[in-house]
Amino acid sequence: MSNHLDPGSERWCCSPVTGEPLSAEQAGELSAMFKALGDPVRLRLLSLVAAHAGGEACVCDLAGAFELSGPTISHHLRVLRQAGLIDSERRGTWIFYSVRPQVLRQLSAVLGPAPAAHGTP
Amino acid sequence: MSNHLDPGSERWCCSPVTGEPLSAEQAGELSAMFKALGDPVRLRLLSLVAAHAGGEACVCDLAGAFELSGPTISHHLRVLRQAGLIDSERRGTWIFYSVRPQVLRQLSAVLGPAPAAHGTP
Repeated sequence: MSNHLDPGSERWCCSPVTGEPLSAEQAGELSAMFKALGDPVRLRLLSLVAAHAGGEACVCDLAGAFELSGPTISHHLRVLRQAGLIDSERRGTWIFYSVRPQVLRQLSAVLGPAPAAHGTP
Repeated sequence: MSNHLDPGSERWCCSPVTGEPLSAEQAGELSAMFKALGDPVRLRLLSLVAAHAGGEACVCDLAGAFELSGPTISHHLRVLRQAGLIDSERRGTWIFYSVRPQVLRQLSAVLGPAPAAHGTP
């Protein structure tokens, strides 16, 4: 089946939800990503990583923005990574996180307007 | 403060997450909507409502797509409505649901690419 969500590539599974109904399978994969975004700390972390100089950040860069412990922040970053929304790369002592722009673009497209018309009933 | 998310209007609070960091307040409001989308049944319901002829649907139109009871489907629709993602209108026996395209468009924009550049570090 070629209809899978594949966060690792530019390929994508789903038309905008306003265009045609999602299959149960597509909804399952997409909802797991939205669920990861459904937490204020994680959503803010994602935006902080994305907006950080060079497009990547470590916990050391992010901790100052929250009244949370380093391990708690690391936990939330891990959830984002497991959902496929960010990448991580260890360099020396720190793990550096970066967003996966193609995945965000794809989620954005799913919520965006259908490319053509509203459809004629 | 004029920076609130206002699903009832075309105004909007937030730049794309790839552009600048979200405030804690913005992240709180947005994450509540993503949380509502973070369930496969709800995400599929949203797409079924959006794609339904005339842009609206009642539980009677939606129940056939799920092995779920009417009350369970109604519960999920209520969560979507409380999150500001769909509207509802009672007409006779049935409540008809329709998506709020401006809200979806706004969520889409938050996840979309920043309008200008990636920024110079």
